[in-house]
Amino acid sequence: MTLNGIAARSERKDCLAADETDSLARFKGRFILPPGVIYLDGNSLGPRPVGALERIQEVVTEEWGVGLIRSWNTAGWFDLPGRLGDKLAKLIGAGKGQTVVTDTTSLNLFKALASAIRIQQVDHPEKRVIVTERDNFPSDVYIAEGITDFLNSMSQEAGVRYEVRLIDDELPLSEALDESTAVIALSHVNYRTGAMWDMAEVCAQAHAVGALAIWDLAHAAGAVPIDLVGADADYAVGCTYKYLNGGPGSPAFIWVNARHQDRFWQPLAGWWSHANPFAMSDSYTPAPDINRFLCGTQPITAMAMVETGLDIMLDVDVEALRAKSLAMTDLFIALVQQRCGDHSLELMTPSEHARRGSHVSFSHPEGYAVMSALIARGVIGDYREPGVLRFGITPLYLSYVDIWDAVEILRDILDTRSWDAPDFKRRNAVT
Amino acid sequence: MTLNGIAARSERKDCLAADETDSLARFKGRFILPPGVIYLDGNSLGPRPVGALERIQEVVTEEWGVGLIRSWNTAGWFDLPGRLGDKLAKLIGAGKGQTVVTDTTSLNLFKALASAIRIQQVDHPEKRVIVTERDNFPSDVYIAEGITDFLNSMSQEAGVRYEVRLIDDELPLSEALDESTAVIALSHVNYRTGAMWDMAEVCAQAHAVGALAIWDLAHAAGAVPIDLVGADADYAVGCTYKYLNGGPGSPAFIWVNARHQDRFWQPLAGWWSHANPFAMSDSYTPAPDINRFLCGTQPITAMAMVETGLDIMLDVDVEALRAKSLAMTDLFIALVQQRCGDHSLELMTPSEHARRGSHVSFSHPEGYAVMSALIARGVIGDYREPGVLRFGITPLYLSYVDIWDAVEILRDILDTRSWDAPDFKRRNAVT
Repeated sequence: MTLNGIAARSERKDCLAADETDSLARFKGRFILPPGVIYLDGNSLGPRPVGALERIQEVVTEEWGVGLIRSWNTAGWFDLPGRLGDKLAKLIGAGKGQTVVTDTTSLNLFKALASAIRIQQVDHPEKRVIVTERDNFPSDVYIAEGITDFLNSMSQEAGVRYEVRLIDDELPLSEALDESTAVIALSHVNYRTGAMWDMAEVCAQAHAVGALAIWDLAHAAGAVPIDLVGADADYAVGCTYKYLNGGPGSPAFIWVNARHQDRFWQPLAGWWSHANPFAMSDSYTPAPDINRFLCGTQPITAMAMVETGLDIMLDVDVEALRAKSLAMTDLFIALVQQRCGDHSLELMTPSEHARRGSHVSFSHPEGYAVMSALIARGVIGDYREPGVLRFGITPLYLSYVDIWDAVEILRDILDTRSWDAPDFKRRNAVT
Repeated sequence: MTLNGIAARSERKDCLAADETDSLARFKGRFILPPGVIYLDGNSLGPRPVGALERIQEVVTEEWGVGLIRSWNTAGWFDLPGRLGDKLAKLIGAGKGQTVVTDTTSLNLFKALASAIRIQQVDHPEKRVIVTERDNFPSDVYIAEGITDFLNSMSQEAGVRYEVRLIDDELPLSEALDESTAVIALSHVNYRTGAMWDMAEVCAQAHAVGALAIWDLAHAAGAVPIDLVGADADYAVGCTYKYLNGGPGSPAFIWVNARHQDRFWQPLAGWWSHANPFAMSDSYTPAPDINRFLCGTQPITAMAMVETGLDIMLDVDVEALRAKSLAMTDLFIALVQQRCGDHSLELMTPSEHARRGSHVSFSHPEGYAVMSALIARGVIGDYREPGVLRFGITPLYLSYVDIWDAVEILRDILDTRSWDAPDFKRRNAVT
């Protein structure tokens, strides 16, 4: 199957033909999407798996309704964070017992940063810089700022201060990393542009200066092959409601390299992180394992649906998923450039496969209005400041002909300037 | 209705008569409980409200399934933390715009402690003691330890250290509070004993030495009348899955007195706490309101069911609820003392109404086995170390005759020593 061939020929029937031979096409039946919608926003909120409703009904009526408090044992609620973590591990190249599903990505990043900082305080107290990216997902920058600000509030007398250093066009990674770097925290795939870091290469660069590497996999887990252990990463966090289809706001995850797990606990040390939570001890002893990265009681209903999404992903050949993702993003880029080339769309996503995640972004001076017009026509992508049209290309429930049809609608909107209407420009909401 | 009269007469028919005239009896129809169960563990996990299944089906099929990413706007997902917070406000004596439903109780306690500590660092930098209770819910003690340990990791050179001071039999509150106290963090109702602090009195004592007062309302919200503004509290956190019937592990809440809201943000400062999250700015500006106590994206399915539980509570006359709770706990205590008095049960819950929450605890040398035997007979309470039988008395779905019947089963188990069986003693699980 020569996908670049499809793009070059630019015929709808070639897309239909490619769908005929697509080994992943059968996965479309495992999701329920509304009619008339081409959903290009699975990188923001994955759609509803077929089994999600049945699972949540079971949790509400049987586990909660009948089992009541007993379900902590009888329905396995206690084990959910670790059980889901071990399922997820297969998608991110983690070993067993290294991952828990819990809390939010931002909170888990705080835990990872706090733990990494403590290790450095002991091993290399002079390392007090957190390197991250100006164009990182903003919450990740804010969490880094929050933790440094909180620690620095203690240091007025000591003169010991933590610092956040942002890499950008002026300050590339190679210059930002130095002996003062305690930790580097990057998103594997950039939320805005879809650009992807070479995880192993960055880990090696970080370790060369004695820094620890934390990865945010929010836009990568379930989208691209990931090998955390192979890349020798130190920590990773991420989200289950995007490519893992866990449901709106479903709990996030944290992975910790086995070499760090018993060194330090993290300060969000609620009872679930205790060695023996139900001993009800009045002093803290951290769990001897990854459970020390838990905090409080998790939302069981939301956790349960994470499993439904993960179980689909575990049936998928990740290499086939990546091949289809690249073929589709190639096709999408080529079609937009061919058919919408005379409009002011600028590709923001890297052309090089090794540098590309699974979403494609174009900037446009009227990006917000164009995306609003697309959504009104049933092509649901999303908009990110400034001027960015973002399209999630999710191979499990999208077909090649969906890509063709989406670009045709985009072309029509641009050719007819139908985006140029007050309704589409009104920023009453975020798309 | 003279409930002490009922207890004194000790006849089942008097309980039936009391149920006939109970103005809250109609609320039992708003919950679904399994047949053959007397549920005395609503202080640990409230039962399923009638509307919960329908609500979650709507969220999964319509809001998630059809609305997809658009539901952040069209289904009001963005506003959920504040909207639920304002509903909850009526139950805890909070003003509008002072409460959000989010994260877990432990995480929210961390935020409250961090914010309070920052205020004291500026106003009274010499105040570096967190006073809490040895018998507080352990997670609260661990969070206080975690935050002090994390801050102290910065202070090796400066000699400035935070400290957790635990009040207990040796060190009463009046002696623990002094000019070094930065903050006092207590549970309004004790998770083990059901003992209740006088909130206004403790706040006054704290303020008299310049300390701030944080309250954990986990075992109080929905159980007893609470007036945070009236008591002049500084912060409060709590849980929605106990007396508020929000579902297993449903998100918690945080309330911040209006006078503190714009002073400091907290270090778990994810994008949801930003003044303009979707501006995607690379630097942090806290929201001008209670939203600065949010962090990341919330589990929408679990949040939605919190509302179902809250909507029931908002129909309840809280004074009537409290009156029935006290009548029932009086009855329960009296019946146990009358009918099980020759066994080794020791009442741990205060007799004085003003000092009692809505659960009753007895210690017993074989508490675990006794509770296991009770659960096997359909009387579901729970067990807490060491040796504590804990019974949640929830007036909305319990009748006086339920109390009578539960005590009869307890009496039978004790009289026949049916708890003395290997199955009931095996600690394979927490009840």
